[in-house]
Amino acid sequence: MIVVMHPGVTEEEIDHVVEEIRHVGLDPHVLTGVERTVINIIGDDRLIRKDHLSLLPGVEEVIPILKPYKLASRDFKHENTVVDVAGVPIGGKHIPVIAGPCSVEGEEQVLQVAEQVKAAGAVLFRGGAYKPRTSPYAFQGLGVDGLKLLAKVREQTGLGVVTEVMESAEVEIVAEYADMLQVGARNMHNSKLLRSLARVKKPILLKRNFSATLNEFLMSAEYLLSGGNSQVVLCERGIRTFVEYSRNTLDLNIVPAVHQLSHLPIIVDPSHGTGRHDLVLPMSLAAVASGADGLMIEVHQNPAEALSDGEQSITPPAFQQLMLNVRALAAVVGRT
Amino acid sequence: MIVVMHPGVTEEEIDHVVEEIRHVGLDPHVLTGVERTVINIIGDDRLIRKDHLSLLPGVEEVIPILKPYKLASRDFKHENTVVDVAGVPIGGKHIPVIAGPCSVEGEEQVLQVAEQVKAAGAVLFRGGAYKPRTSPYAFQGLGVDGLKLLAKVREQTGLGVVTEVMESAEVEIVAEYADMLQVGARNMHNSKLLRSLARVKKPILLKRNFSATLNEFLMSAEYLLSGGNSQVVLCERGIRTFVEYSRNTLDLNIVPAVHQLSHLPIIVDPSHGTGRHDLVLPMSLAAVASGADGLMIEVHQNPAEALSDGEQSITPPAFQQLMLNVRALAAVVGRT
Amino acid sequence: MIVVMHPGVTEEEIDHVVEEIRHVGLDPHVLTGVERTVINIIGDDRLIRKDHLSLLPGVEEVIPILKPYKLASRDFKHENTVVDVAGVPIGGKHIPVIAGPCSVEGEEQVLQVAEQVKAAGAVLFRGGAYKPRTSPYAFQGLGVDGLKLLAKVREQTGLGVVTEVMESAEVEIVAEYADMLQVGARNMHNSKLLRSLARVKKPILLKRNFSATLNEFLMSAEYLLSGGNSQVVLCERGIRTFVEYSRNTLDLNIVPAVHQLSHLPIIVDPSHGTGRHDLVLPMSLAAVASGADGLMIEVHQNPAEALSDGEQSITPPAFQQLMLNVRALAAVVGRT
Amino acid sequence: MIVVMHPGVTEEEIDHVVEEIRHVGLDPHVLTGVERTVINIIGDDRLIRKDHLSLLPGVEEVIPILKPYKLASRDFKHENTVVDVAGVPIGGKHIPVIAGPCSVEGEEQVLQVAEQVKAAGAVLFRGGAYKPRTSPYAFQGLGVDGLKLLAKVREQTGLGVVTEVMESAEVEIVAEYADMLQVGARNMHNSKLLRSLARVKKPILLKRNFSATLNEFLMSAEYLLSGGNSQVVLCERGIRTFVEYSRNTLDLNIVPAVHQLSHLPIIVDPSHGTGRHDLVLPMSLAAVASGADGLMIEVHQNPAEALSDGEQSITPPAFQQLMLNVRALAAVVGRT
Repeated sequence: MIVVMHPGVTEEEIDHVVEEIRHVGLDPHVLTGVERTVINIIGDDRLIRKDHLSLLPGVEEVIPILKPYKLASRDFKHENTVVDVAGVPIGGKHIPVIAGPCSVEGEEQVLQVAEQVKAAGAVLFRGGAYKPRTSPYAFQGLGVDGLKLLAKVREQTGLGVVTEVMESAEVEIVAEYADMLQVGARNMHNSKLLRSLARVKKPILLKRNFSATLNEFLMSAEYLLSGGNSQVVLCERGIRTFVEYSRNTLDLNIVPAVHQLSHLPIIVDPSHGTGRHDLVLPMSLAAVASGADGLMIEVHQNPAEALSDGEQSITPPAFQQLMLNVRALAAVVGRT
Repeated sequence: MIVVMHPGVTEEEIDHVVEEIRHVGLDPHVLTGVERTVINIIGDDRLIRKDHLSLLPGVEEVIPILKPYKLASRDFKHENTVVDVAGVPIGGKHIPVIAGPCSVEGEEQVLQVAEQVKAAGAVLFRGGAYKPRTSPYAFQGLGVDGLKLLAKVREQTGLGVVTEVMESAEVEIVAEYADMLQVGARNMHNSKLLRSLARVKKPILLKRNFSATLNEFLMSAEYLLSGGNSQVVLCERGIRTFVEYSRNTLDLNIVPAVHQLSHLPIIVDPSHGTGRHDLVLPMSLAAVASGADGLMIEVHQNPAEALSDGEQSITPPAFQQLMLNVRALAAVVGRT
Repeated sequence: MIVVMHPGVTEEEIDHVVEEIRHVGLDPHVLTGVERTVINIIGDDRLIRKDHLSLLPGVEEVIPILKPYKLASRDFKHENTVVDVAGVPIGGKHIPVIAGPCSVEGEEQVLQVAEQVKAAGAVLFRGGAYKPRTSPYAFQGLGVDGLKLLAKVREQTGLGVVTEVMESAEVEIVAEYADMLQVGARNMHNSKLLRSLARVKKPILLKRNFSATLNEFLMSAEYLLSGGNSQVVLCERGIRTFVEYSRNTLDLNIVPAVHQLSHLPIIVDPSHGTGRHDLVLPMSLAAVASGADGLMIEVHQNPAEALSDGEQSITPPAFQQLMLNVRALAAVVGRT
Repeated sequence: MIVVMHPGVTEEEIDHVVEEIRHVGLDPHVLTGVERTVINIIGDDRLIRKDHLSLLPGVEEVIPILKPYKLASRDFKHENTVVDVAGVPIGGKHIPVIAGPCSVEGEEQVLQVAEQVKAAGAVLFRGGAYKPRTSPYAFQGLGVDGLKLLAKVREQTGLGVVTEVMESAEVEIVAEYADMLQVGARNMHNSKLLRSLARVKKPILLKRNFSATLNEFLMSAEYLLSGGNSQVVLCERGIRTFVEYSRNTLDLNIVPAVHQLSHLPIIVDPSHGTGRHDLVLPMSLAAVASGADGLMIEVHQNPAEALSDGEQSITPPAFQQLMLNVRALAAVVGRT
């Protein structure tokens, strides 16, 4: 950590900062420049609060050197983490595709679409039983009945199932049915939920919040890792910008950035990421080309009748086409 | 709702859309222009899903005319809502100031600062017992012990207390102690929590999410109103932008915009809204000048020692000065 | 255009709007719904100003149906435009790569790097003679001397050259030397420059401003098209968001969006788009996968010594590797 | 400047960086911590390019300590700069209001509105003769004829006039007629224009670009100051965010931030800043309360007939009311 002092700082102010740093067992180095005096702190930045130092008299700015996350960083663990979801590895050479409808709407619907996405090459099934919705008047999911239908999908198709859990009180029941528990974008900052999930023996799919920085995203992963659950897969699903032609702005730049800074795998959800079914194919290919470790795609037999997110769902034939393209592309970027 | 058809749309496609609209009991009007055919829907937009229409063949775009919220709109209720919090009206001529530390840290701390902010003119006390934090290594609040200290503050000072509730499982216990329950910015989209709070007989302080549009903000209020709790106060606390000199960008433009579209009161939190103690005074004054119905200010005896958010907290003497300025300003804008 | 009237609008107010619409020769249709009265305008939206109607008494909102651009839209011209730059077609099946240094720094530098990028497969050469810089203390380009060096590059290598023009006074001299004139992101809104370029008989590379919506981007193209120059290539080069790990957020979603709404080709500049040399390769591949009609890449023999934008430049060997990857990928997406 | 080395950096890499720093005459201090080695540079950061260092082998990150601007900073000049515009001081105790129509449309229009805003208390007149417009089909201003009408306004009313200049070729003619030359938001990054204006003996009104950071804004001012023109007034006029209820998001947080970091005065334009006439009054008051050194307001006799920006213009009676409110408020914040 670097403490930058104001121009015109006094000796007493410098001494005070030096003492505070020594007080927590860290080692301060004072360097006096032409325009500013700076104090370098040798040792683990995380032992002293930035707030504390920045409010001491004479301090202009405090600049952290180390990242706020530790267990999620590539410094801590150099090799890629490969997460196993019901026998499907995420984070390795293979690029798994997770597919299924936004919401579980009924037995026939999920079983049929599951067979179709499986036939096209999907290796995991997605479907929401608990739905976070912007409107109180919109369909809120089938709840436990939805979870039971997902279990039936697994039984019949052999596909592992991924589904969202919305609060800590529901973690146990969802963990009973699901192979992977999803933290939705709206819950990425929900520390209570993250703490509960850290104690679960199931892999977690952590979606990026609309306005999360990379630091914040990895700090949410850190909640899981530091709490004991190291089976974490990150998921980019679009950020909020001024842009008006897509519901969200899918930010693929984060894919290589995560690969640099973290050992955790990152997949991409172009359905939520763009909010437009006609952008799903090109942005799926772009995601794979950028280095994504997997895709998550919303598929519905009849998007116009879907109870949620129809505008961003593609049909089973479109999904089949997408898989053909993804397969060809994966080979080019050295993956399968 | 207006359905805009593609250029080159066929008669069959138009007929199909018309039928679908009639099917739900609404009344379609087809108008054929030079470059586009548009279909106007007469009746309540909210009876038909935009998704459903936009995916029908031949449809280019669907434009809603009515706002998605109903109970929160000024169309529905013309007069300003005044919310009573432990005898303090929010939404009327008076501009109440809520003050206190970010976190409840200990008995002496809260009692002392409560006396100080009361003496300066604060009419409600704020303090966090449950703290949503970005880092798993940061102080997470005292929990129930914190709530008990808040109850002591009320007992000794007579100030009503406002505190955050983080998930539905905690609603009951927080409602037992608090006079007003706060939904934090990270939880504005937490529909489970909103549904629980809709059934509580206490007023709610609903903070805007970092990246929430006005529609989304009022839809979260709609969860509360439609669930039976009409005692809702909105709170602007900064949005996420590219700007780098304040932690968030306090968006005062929303204050007059809310007053136009909704009957609910809106207060402003310049502490979180800027993230910088030195911007709290000017932005508090700006908030009042823009028409805010109240302020929420973080005050700590020794910000450098605060366990959370010290960088944005002001001291009791600074708060006293702020209150003098606010009082003078309120008179100018016709308030007290 | 749809004019939405306030609830409680009077007959006189409706009549007034109707008259104003008739006054410009358009045909108004009044539809009275349950909550709102709306007036549809049949005819070309662009004949009446939105401002004018929205300020008439009783009007709540005016919603345009037609896009503000006309000549740039796919409605106007259905087939893809293919722009010829010194014999290189942009917008067809082939994906041309434009490469070269950010700035022209000297003869040896440009000739050497030009030979290298040509050998690797680049078909056009880029290099800045006039440089828009954030800092007045930074290198501002060689000016006319730089243009002359670019002409030498063309002579020796046969590569057409692309270079930026910064104001209308320089259009003539730049047009004399360059094969394609570039409008930089900072100048996308510079209507004087666009008007001058509309009269030039050379193709234009129009870069998207950091904060331009798609409508604004195509309106800048409309300046060129309506002024007589139809040889326009669009270029995505990153937008400004809250994201901190890339200097800009490269927005690939705009590529398929442009292809839907416009007939103009769009290429991608991942060097400026990310601001980080280590993101150039993955984002170049992602750009091609998303459907980009070309790439523009900054290449420098020794990025650490570059007089501008070294952080985002790649070396000739890295460029060679990039070209191998791009070539393999292009084949998969049906291009060359 | 702080150079942070990668974990696992070699001695040779450190030595190389040290030599490069010494090479330009600066003094490097190497500090080896537990997780990172950092190299502090003593001396003027601005003598070495961040790019250059960040690309040396073994370097992870380069963090500047000093701001990139020098002449615009409060470090350089402690006292507030007061700019004199035709006898009106901007930056002192008095809060001047600049008012007038968006565009100069005709003689009667400007003379009449000038008399009205003067009567209400405006001290400078604004009006555009050269208009930067998003659409090539929109009114582009009267040009020199407009400038002549502005001169007539000055003659008849005694009000100094402020008008926009769009490119360096027009600087001379505009400077001949105007008392203050405005750089529009779209031109804040136009270094050619800024260089020309630096040589003019007239004060400059520099508007913030929609997506400009504070650093970039002050760097544009630095172009003027370093080129010889120290008569610079900054103007906040709204930034581009995801927000949908105002055309731009007026960012008042920048007002106290500029006052901390720079000696230059900053005024606020709530007309462009919000894009909505009904937000002009509350946001004008908020601007003054936040510490703005002046206001710039668009006033038109008949906004519905204005040739540009009618939606954000207020009428002369509304302006009169605004001035009454501003006057009362100014007194409260210790200004006039």
